[in-house]
Amino acid sequence: MANLTPSHQRRVAVAGVSGYSGGELVRLLLGHPRLAVNPLLLGRLNEPAPAHPVHLGDLHPQLATAAGLGDPIQPFTWDRLVEERIDLLFLATPHEQSRQWAPEALARGIRVVDLSGAWRLQDPANRAVYNLTDADPAAAQKIQAEAAFGAPELHRDAIRNARLVANPGCYSTTIILALAPLALGGFLNPDHGIIADAKSGVSGAGKAATPKTHFMYAADNLSAYSVFGHRHTGELLEQLHLTEDQIQFTPHLLPIPRGILATIYVRLASKMTPEDIARVFGTFYAGRPMVRLHKTPGLPQIQHVVRTSFCDIGFHLAQDGKRLVLVSCLDNLLKGAAAQAVQNMNLMFGWEESEGLL
Amino acid sequence: MANLTPSHQRRVAVAGVSGYSGGELVRLLLGHPRLAVNPLLLGRLNEPAPAHPVHLGDLHPQLATAAGLGDPIQPFTWDRLVEERIDLLFLATPHEQSRQWAPEALARGIRVVDLSGAWRLQDPANRAVYNLTDADPAAAQKIQAEAAFGAPELHRDAIRNARLVANPGCYSTTIILALAPLALGGFLNPDHGIIADAKSGVSGAGKAATPKTHFMYAADNLSAYSVFGHRHTGELLEQLHLTEDQIQFTPHLLPIPRGILATIYVRLASKMTPEDIARVFGTFYAGRPMVRLHKTPGLPQIQHVVRTSFCDIGFHLAQDGKRLVLVSCLDNLLKGAAAQAVQNMNLMFGWEESEGLL
Amino acid sequence: MANLTPSHQRRVAVAGVSGYSGGELVRLLLGHPRLAVNPLLLGRLNEPAPAHPVHLGDLHPQLATAAGLGDPIQPFTWDRLVEERIDLLFLATPHEQSRQWAPEALARGIRVVDLSGAWRLQDPANRAVYNLTDADPAAAQKIQAEAAFGAPELHRDAIRNARLVANPGCYSTTIILALAPLALGGFLNPDHGIIADAKSGVSGAGKAATPKTHFMYAADNLSAYSVFGHRHTGELLEQLHLTEDQIQFTPHLLPIPRGILATIYVRLASKMTPEDIARVFGTFYAGRPMVRLHKTPGLPQIQHVVRTSFCDIGFHLAQDGKRLVLVSCLDNLLKGAAAQAVQNMNLMFGWEESEGLL
Amino acid sequence: MANLTPSHQRRVAVAGVSGYSGGELVRLLLGHPRLAVNPLLLGRLNEPAPAHPVHLGDLHPQLATAAGLGDPIQPFTWDRLVEERIDLLFLATPHEQSRQWAPEALARGIRVVDLSGAWRLQDPANRAVYNLTDADPAAAQKIQAEAAFGAPELHRDAIRNARLVANPGCYSTTIILALAPLALGGFLNPDHGIIADAKSGVSGAGKAATPKTHFMYAADNLSAYSVFGHRHTGELLEQLHLTEDQIQFTPHLLPIPRGILATIYVRLASKMTPEDIARVFGTFYAGRPMVRLHKTPGLPQIQHVVRTSFCDIGFHLAQDGKRLVLVSCLDNLLKGAAAQAVQNMNLMFGWEESEGLL
Repeated sequence: MANLTPSHQRRVAVAGVSGYSGGELVRLLLGHPRLAVNPLLLGRLNEPAPAHPVHLGDLHPQLATAAGLGDPIQPFTWDRLVEERIDLLFLATPHEQSRQWAPEALARGIRVVDLSGAWRLQDPANRAVYNLTDADPAAAQKIQAEAAFGAPELHRDAIRNARLVANPGCYSTTIILALAPLALGGFLNPDHGIIADAKSGVSGAGKAATPKTHFMYAADNLSAYSVFGHRHTGELLEQLHLTEDQIQFTPHLLPIPRGILATIYVRLASKMTPEDIARVFGTFYAGRPMVRLHKTPGLPQIQHVVRTSFCDIGFHLAQDGKRLVLVSCLDNLLKGAAAQAVQNMNLMFGWEESEGLL
Repeated sequence: MANLTPSHQRRVAVAGVSGYSGGELVRLLLGHPRLAVNPLLLGRLNEPAPAHPVHLGDLHPQLATAAGLGDPIQPFTWDRLVEERIDLLFLATPHEQSRQWAPEALARGIRVVDLSGAWRLQDPANRAVYNLTDADPAAAQKIQAEAAFGAPELHRDAIRNARLVANPGCYSTTIILALAPLALGGFLNPDHGIIADAKSGVSGAGKAATPKTHFMYAADNLSAYSVFGHRHTGELLEQLHLTEDQIQFTPHLLPIPRGILATIYVRLASKMTPEDIARVFGTFYAGRPMVRLHKTPGLPQIQHVVRTSFCDIGFHLAQDGKRLVLVSCLDNLLKGAAAQAVQNMNLMFGWEESEGLL
Repeated sequence: MANLTPSHQRRVAVAGVSGYSGGELVRLLLGHPRLAVNPLLLGRLNEPAPAHPVHLGDLHPQLATAAGLGDPIQPFTWDRLVEERIDLLFLATPHEQSRQWAPEALARGIRVVDLSGAWRLQDPANRAVYNLTDADPAAAQKIQAEAAFGAPELHRDAIRNARLVANPGCYSTTIILALAPLALGGFLNPDHGIIADAKSGVSGAGKAATPKTHFMYAADNLSAYSVFGHRHTGELLEQLHLTEDQIQFTPHLLPIPRGILATIYVRLASKMTPEDIARVFGTFYAGRPMVRLHKTPGLPQIQHVVRTSFCDIGFHLAQDGKRLVLVSCLDNLLKGAAAQAVQNMNLMFGWEESEGLL
Repeated sequence: MANLTPSHQRRVAVAGVSGYSGGELVRLLLGHPRLAVNPLLLGRLNEPAPAHPVHLGDLHPQLATAAGLGDPIQPFTWDRLVEERIDLLFLATPHEQSRQWAPEALARGIRVVDLSGAWRLQDPANRAVYNLTDADPAAAQKIQAEAAFGAPELHRDAIRNARLVANPGCYSTTIILALAPLALGGFLNPDHGIIADAKSGVSGAGKAATPKTHFMYAADNLSAYSVFGHRHTGELLEQLHLTEDQIQFTPHLLPIPRGILATIYVRLASKMTPEDIARVFGTFYAGRPMVRLHKTPGLPQIQHVVRTSFCDIGFHLAQDGKRLVLVSCLDNLLKGAAAQAVQNMNLMFGWEESEGLL
């Protein structure tokens, strides 16, 4: 990326602006201090422009201004992206589309941050859960191999130079950031299973009106789902170097619009003190602006992180110095999706990681 | 109804048990002390029985018991109703179906309490909003003319003897009960418009998953809708003897599962004291078990009535003795639907109005 | 209890009617088919009657009727309980008061169901968390020793004959009922720790207005608390015969009024099939009316049990046949408090366990 | 204010940072592009600094960063404000304190934006509801007379030059902005009363833990309060030039954290078309960046404005061209408090009204 000098005016486009993550992404990009030009907002691929143009404010009324409804949603054609000299395309699209479109963008010299699950998993067995099909499997495999997993706290250098960044899942981000310092540092007892009991707000279920997103189903309720089978599990295994029997992840649907909290139970390989653990985390996250390490007493909670781009991590250690409870939380639409995508863009453009996120 | 001796064992059936009102209705009927036989639960008309029979507890898990999932949903055929010697059929069905089925039931000697809007309105102009079509318009007109409006506090005698009772709308019940003592008693200034600002929980919007029943739309929100055009308006006009320019009714969607509260603004025809008003209401509702008149200070609120079968009514009078604010609330699925249907059934069977509702 | 013939008219009293559990208890007792006389509602001990008597409907507006505010709260004196020939006193009082009053009641021949934590724990080390002091420690110790732990599914016979029943904690009930068939049956690997990740609605925190019960704190939030230190832990240890390092229980505060769901992670001692597990639970809970065993697929959720007296239990077993996830839920004010108290009363009076609870 | 050149570096201080409005105000000021220096955060007046200094992140965890808890709360002394060369003091304090402190600040040449009700009302009869006492009544009266009512859409020029700006109430802002174009333009029938039925989230009730801010009171509920007596009424009368019998304002408590929606019913003086009304509003709010006029169909709703600094206004006109329903909404902590305070500061410093608010 040597040709990307700071003086170059970066231009980005967003496909999939109608969803919750897409809307938050556009909001962040509109307020980003280094992007002088508004993002190009894209509609459905190769469809003719609608008779009555749809504007950003039609989809996300809180983004309208007194002057009007904001930028129009443009027809999505590859020619248009080339004409507009787009440097980076955000795909906030379903995984099938992301799987198809990312190679198309790369072929035109456009870098990609994909918010779907299409490119996150290197192991085909893990990826099987998405039922992806590739027009050119060999080419797709090469692109898959070079895709960076977009967790900046783990893969900053790879992201800086990547053409394609696979933005992590919301649950995965919450759990990986809490476990990485211990799991990658060899502090966990590998034979004692890890339990990640995670709870998410309803926006994580997407904008489609279904029986489970009905207010009457979700309100005043809590339910576990996808026990032993949530598709974010593969990300945990690959990023934390675990086998399937070493971690159990159970998601729950919370009666709130946004936010994820994971309560994670681990056994340490050998006895540690709270200070030891604080030191491990402090070292791992030194200089990382989007992770806040909670000081005891007290633990992170969803309200602390909602509408912020932070992941908050705290812990309680049993008196035996071995049984550890970690609590990790973030806003599933921000650090769990759109803000992390912007963080990745910042790295790809050689900017400060936290630019536009504080 | 002289032939209905106490020794006769009443048998009832419910069509439309899958919805919220239907579920509440079944719950009330199962606990009703005078109905020795469980209600017959009916599925869709003339459809074959499903391969795997559906039970009540599949649709409404809170109604299952430790022993099992409760009664099966039976195929709905008219023959079956006759065989089972059903006395009364509750229709918790969409209005088109209710319009079609009520005459069919009556033709077989089965009385009907219809919870839809199909039979509530005598004036065809008011009824137009439902787009109803009748196979035999003349017959339908005769049935319409004899249908009792199922507000027991207004039409007790007619309900007792009715073959068909049209259970009122949830908003209508809330507003009519608050206004009837004053409007029907001639205490209101007819030239000064009445304002009924009403707010309802999401169950009022039904079980269908739509953009407006999505948790992300309804939660942490409030929105007005159907301004100057809600289809319960006709009930207000007919029951309170008002013209369209004499009352304005604005519904709002509350971020709660159930409950309606209406704040109603009227001008009195002549100066009154709070004691005068309390006396008018006390007289009107004397001996009526399902209306609770709130004592000042304080006003009714939704929590007081949710999961009860009551309508609570309170008021504040301005110092001028003329401007009056009424607050009325109820549970839209109970006094606004299922409990009122049971109240009507009680009257039709010659039982205490409040049987099974306290 | 041979002298308690069915013809004896049972009379009960409730101390502590102002709280959430007390209110639910009174509601259940008022509707109980075997209690012909309303419960005697008691105010604070030895205080003079207030100038303006407080009625049940003042404290719990949903319990008022059209006729009035319901029974008055009586001055609480021991003489009055004796005069009224009270058979059984419910204590829905703070644990210090329950510790003091239960012996006073027993001394007057009045049986007690105590809803507080005062008498639940036999091991003084576990009980230390309550900071209880006894006027007569030796007498208190004797009473403690005879107190039955009020989990009818575990101690039915003891409860039937008990003078004092210590109604279990809400979290404890949820977790004990899910684990008892496996833990007491020897099906668990004792060396692998049990994780109980539990989530409760705000009513569990009581009626006092505190920073943590403020709507702005609890709404749209989730927070873990009392990690490694919740005072219900002792009940788990004593009832399930576990040591402190064998179970980890983490409570969370849910943004809902009522309901508890616990997600519980265990390792089986040896490989089992789902059918094996269903059989263990089916046998353990055969004929027990207040526990509903969930059929797969699907898991219990809070909405299924709120406003019911059931505890629902379901599970998912990993393909290895060893790692098991249990989900258990109940209404913390009902099966977690008031309904369980009524269930205990039913047993103490020789009635059907589920009387007045279905 | 001729001495306030653009080159002068503006310095502001905030008293009362612990509350909801204070927290939002600090958040806005920290992100304000024209304030190069962080606001000085003030603790209680004349109290010694606490042993363990409190930081912003202790009070508002979402405002902490990965690096730390943010600025400390400083002891509040007038000397300190002078030393720090503070230009403008925000008072997010109770009205008694604001009444006492504003003159103190002005005496030291420090301009004030007061977010309380202390200085909003010119008519002593309207102000009586606050029970304010002045050490020097004559001096207070002079200050009162020069205080600008901080509704920038009505009083921009006065605010620019004011030493003291009284930031309006949250309800008042919602209602005044909806009515001003019609009421001040003479389009309303003055003899027909205006009804303003307003609904607010719980943050409007403040941070104190009280029975009415308890989650169990507010959740799943709606209640009217302060009928005919809310203290924001005086602002409506003074700003809209109405008499008490010309407007009825009823507030309600919504089960949501933030947001206000007012449904307002008026009669027009003469028949108008929707286009006429749109023109009146369009002219009145031309060039005003913080008011968004809603285009029909559809109406403003709380979700559109929460976490924005806008007031959204929409309407529905009856077919008679006379009966008009206005819907107005805003975030009570932003356009209803903190954002409006920043908007006023912007005007006082000669900056763009919307600086830091979009």
